[in-house]
Amino acid sequence: MKERRDGLCRIVLDCPDRRGVVSRVSTRLAELGATILDAHQHSDADSGHFFMRYEVAPDARFEDLEQWSVPYLQDGLSELTSELSLAMRVTSASRRPKVALLATKAPHCLVDVLQRWRSAELHCDIVCVIANHPEMGEYAGWYGVPFHHVDFTSQSKSRAFTEIESLLDKHHVELTVLARFMQIVPQALIDKHRGRMINIHHSFLPSFVGARPYDQAYKRGVKLIGATCHYVTADLDEGPIVEQEVIRVSHMDDPLDLRRKGRMCEREALARGLRLHLEDRVFIHGNKTVVFSE
Amino acid sequence: MKERRDGLCRIVLDCPDRRGVVSRVSTRLAELGATILDAHQHSDADSGHFFMRYEVAPDARFEDLEQWSVPYLQDGLSELTSELSLAMRVTSASRRPKVALLATKAPHCLVDVLQRWRSAELHCDIVCVIANHPEMGEYAGWYGVPFHHVDFTSQSKSRAFTEIESLLDKHHVELTVLARFMQIVPQALIDKHRGRMINIHHSFLPSFVGARPYDQAYKRGVKLIGATCHYVTADLDEGPIVEQEVIRVSHMDDPLDLRRKGRMCEREALARGLRLHLEDRVFIHGNKTVVFSE
Amino acid sequence: MKERRDGLCRIVLDCPDRRGVVSRVSTRLAELGATILDAHQHSDADSGHFFMRYEVAPDARFEDLEQWSVPYLQDGLSELTSELSLAMRVTSASRRPKVALLATKAPHCLVDVLQRWRSAELHCDIVCVIANHPEMGEYAGWYGVPFHHVDFTSQSKSRAFTEIESLLDKHHVELTVLARFMQIVPQALIDKHRGRMINIHHSFLPSFVGARPYDQAYKRGVKLIGATCHYVTADLDEGPIVEQEVIRVSHMDDPLDLRRKGRMCEREALARGLRLHLEDRVFIHGNKTVVFSE
Amino acid sequence: MKERRDGLCRIVLDCPDRRGVVSRVSTRLAELGATILDAHQHSDADSGHFFMRYEVAPDARFEDLEQWSVPYLQDGLSELTSELSLAMRVTSASRRPKVALLATKAPHCLVDVLQRWRSAELHCDIVCVIANHPEMGEYAGWYGVPFHHVDFTSQSKSRAFTEIESLLDKHHVELTVLARFMQIVPQALIDKHRGRMINIHHSFLPSFVGARPYDQAYKRGVKLIGATCHYVTADLDEGPIVEQEVIRVSHMDDPLDLRRKGRMCEREALARGLRLHLEDRVFIHGNKTVVFSE
Repeated sequence: MKERRDGLCRIVLDCPDRRGVVSRVSTRLAELGATILDAHQHSDADSGHFFMRYEVAPDARFEDLEQWSVPYLQDGLSELTSELSLAMRVTSASRRPKVALLATKAPHCLVDVLQRWRSAELHCDIVCVIANHPEMGEYAGWYGVPFHHVDFTSQSKSRAFTEIESLLDKHHVELTVLARFMQIVPQALIDKHRGRMINIHHSFLPSFVGARPYDQAYKRGVKLIGATCHYVTADLDEGPIVEQEVIRVSHMDDPLDLRRKGRMCEREALARGLRLHLEDRVFIHGNKTVVFSE
Repeated sequence: MKERRDGLCRIVLDCPDRRGVVSRVSTRLAELGATILDAHQHSDADSGHFFMRYEVAPDARFEDLEQWSVPYLQDGLSELTSELSLAMRVTSASRRPKVALLATKAPHCLVDVLQRWRSAELHCDIVCVIANHPEMGEYAGWYGVPFHHVDFTSQSKSRAFTEIESLLDKHHVELTVLARFMQIVPQALIDKHRGRMINIHHSFLPSFVGARPYDQAYKRGVKLIGATCHYVTADLDEGPIVEQEVIRVSHMDDPLDLRRKGRMCEREALARGLRLHLEDRVFIHGNKTVVFSE
Repeated sequence: MKERRDGLCRIVLDCPDRRGVVSRVSTRLAELGATILDAHQHSDADSGHFFMRYEVAPDARFEDLEQWSVPYLQDGLSELTSELSLAMRVTSASRRPKVALLATKAPHCLVDVLQRWRSAELHCDIVCVIANHPEMGEYAGWYGVPFHHVDFTSQSKSRAFTEIESLLDKHHVELTVLARFMQIVPQALIDKHRGRMINIHHSFLPSFVGARPYDQAYKRGVKLIGATCHYVTADLDEGPIVEQEVIRVSHMDDPLDLRRKGRMCEREALARGLRLHLEDRVFIHGNKTVVFSE
Repeated sequence: MKERRDGLCRIVLDCPDRRGVVSRVSTRLAELGATILDAHQHSDADSGHFFMRYEVAPDARFEDLEQWSVPYLQDGLSELTSELSLAMRVTSASRRPKVALLATKAPHCLVDVLQRWRSAELHCDIVCVIANHPEMGEYAGWYGVPFHHVDFTSQSKSRAFTEIESLLDKHHVELTVLARFMQIVPQALIDKHRGRMINIHHSFLPSFVGARPYDQAYKRGVKLIGATCHYVTADLDEGPIVEQEVIRVSHMDDPLDLRRKGRMCEREALARGLRLHLEDRVFIHGNKTVVFSE
């Protein structure tokens, strides 16, 4: 909950080789008057790729906080960025990314995200709820979020997704959350939002890919079921995994019981994954993620 | 730990239709002077099949406990068994089934089972350890269990398994535990020991079937790994699951870390699964199990 | 989810000595045309007390289901009840107990229960929400539940609780859920609702009894925090425990983080405890519970 | 498993104020030719104290690895250490700290640590097993570890502990592990080994402090039990917690069942806590710990 400090910014970067990166970046930050409050780094042994996340705040010499800003840090680090070929991003912890929620008929994930958001547990602006069933509208309405029903029956899927794309554009959406949205997103839309579209899958991937995972789990007789929060990619159910959760089940649980118990996993995995993303704690690296947990 | 009562017996039965079964069996047991100490029953909704497990002890009228025995109960229930087409088994809780442990090179499951057995946590007689690597011999030796090294390099697999089969016969083995035994058991041997051969698989099935599951898990970037205790069947990794366990992992864990963390899951899932089997708490039903937990 | 069967009833009973009880009850049920679908029993070793729960349904001979009813079963079993000194209760699984939710300011448990109820996950009628802060009213309103604000500032506690008591009476409340209700309930009201008032405590009892458990947990530096669902008794935090849940925390979590993470435990423990109670799966035995899990 | 890299060293430091520390230290390390492979830092919000752990290795310019050593790093950083008032320690990851295991009668933790050690899961030298019961000797013997039986019956406690102290001295023990050692360690010995003596407590602290926690847990009717690995301090059961583990239990579990199930928690919490300590991942801060997890 480092958001509670004035001027808190996050610096996330990755690069192929990290020789001297920590030293160079931390020294430059000291020169810029930035105090490092929290630091994570990881080097992927296979690829040699390096990942780093800093939380920084202005140190005591910043009497006039107006000087301190994301552009100030970006400018101050820009020379280093090009010299060391860093992929770098600076964000303000007080900034609220614009989030769209996509849903179909099951409200549990939608309500959970909306309620956590309302309780200030998720630091973002939920700018719209989009659903292919009108019933979700009342939830959105109550939480004061614009609702858009996109009809998938009276028009082609392709047209429906064009409508969704326009809505995401119109609302300047930065993160799209598929909160049990039961439609396959077209490749072009995925590409456009690559790394900014997360899904909650109702199974413990890679178990039970494909349709009706709870029925598959029932049929197989597993003793634990789960849910997976992952980034959406072209290969369905193959996207980089952010978070997973499991719960114990038994022979007494029929498919409806599995659905009910699984909803806890779906809610938790999605809420945690979403929060991790919003706090710039997740790096996508190939089909995997580096997650700097709080 | 109901074993601690004198004369404790278990009655496990299943049948296609359970109309009146509880009433008939419990009434007959009352007539036989048996007190029901613990009872579980389950009706599978799909197949309509019925499963029941009773723990019974002689009631107060049994002044002479010698009258009380497994055959006494079997005889007393035999008429009912045939009348209601019950598959029934009566066992004495004090009886120790003969168990063989099969291993290859990794000792963690082997040692864990042996130590729990020595600590009286597992009620059985471990009559032999069989391994295709001689190193396991010292563990067996220390725990005072006969060890047999079956060589899989100097002879054909088929001959090696013939040797194993002879050993299982010779020791009158009632349950064979594959404690990280990395050889595929031939169909004929599986059939001979159907329902009496359990395996610990080092993944959270059905994820990562096949070879090197930890490497697969690493490659996929999952956030939880696990292990599965299941009965051995012809379809590799498809046998009825008895117990599963999972543990959280992260991007920091390389394949060796996953192996290390996974060993906890393997030990726990195997020990719990083994104990459940030994206490007659597991019914195999198709490719699934009914497990009456303690 | 056995509710899905027509005519499903539950028979729960307990008695000091269970000699022949299973046999007598199951035989009488067979005579009454009741099929036992699910059965649990437990004998407490210390006290020798016996507990039993049956789910029964009319068997095939009941062509006219109107004959089948709770009174029919009660009457049919009444002779046995008095003969064997059974404390027995028969309930219809289709009946919805009347539930009141009491809250203060934190909405997470309240919303979670309301949303699960709306999603048919909790089989009951939530007849009112009572709170000592008016903000909870909008949640109640949206879910269509009558809301009562009981003011604890402008009147004495004693008068406020008299008001609550009248509301519980007026709504014929059968189960009162303290969903993070931060007021100590007077002895007389507890006595009146003994065994029918459950609380969610925001710690893993008996750790951190008393006020501000999350601050206590932070100060002690524990690595897991939790929540406890228990029946309300005169001894605060000493009531019989129904369900508990825990979550891992670390040195990075400040008291606000603990509160956030703990909310998951509170929601889960309360929802599971509530469901267990509503399905007549919980027996209170002294300061402990017997819980026949689904 | 960063140990697998040649020359890997760990630098752990803490200091009251961390202004510029990261920058200064990382810059100095770059000058010394050290590459930072892994970094953790934490600032305690209450005390303002700062903690840091680096894993470093020689970078490419170290053609002659003999130059690289713990003293080389210590010397290179010494100026900084005094200038910034750092409490700093440099250790080689290849070095094996000397560990003593103390036990009484229950072998499960002892065997678990010994077997993990033998399997190279714990990077240390177990130099002796000390127990107040002779039965532990056979375990120590089999694992090839010197065993010392210290008799607590034929001599005073004080003399017995003098004997233990001599043994710890003689073996140059750096870490003492109380692996279910059921004797209260005298203040002086604790002081002498402050921060280098860890205990496994058979309850989920702070629940059930004092004697017979499993019996207390049984009496209270909790639904989860646990174990706690903590540093030994004068206040019994009040030492800084390193790791905790829990497992679900039910009304069916009698005190013996709780003991059995709890053993899993004890083994896991101790093994994880021990490993964290051996890898210099734990800082003691007042009565709490900062744990930089792998």
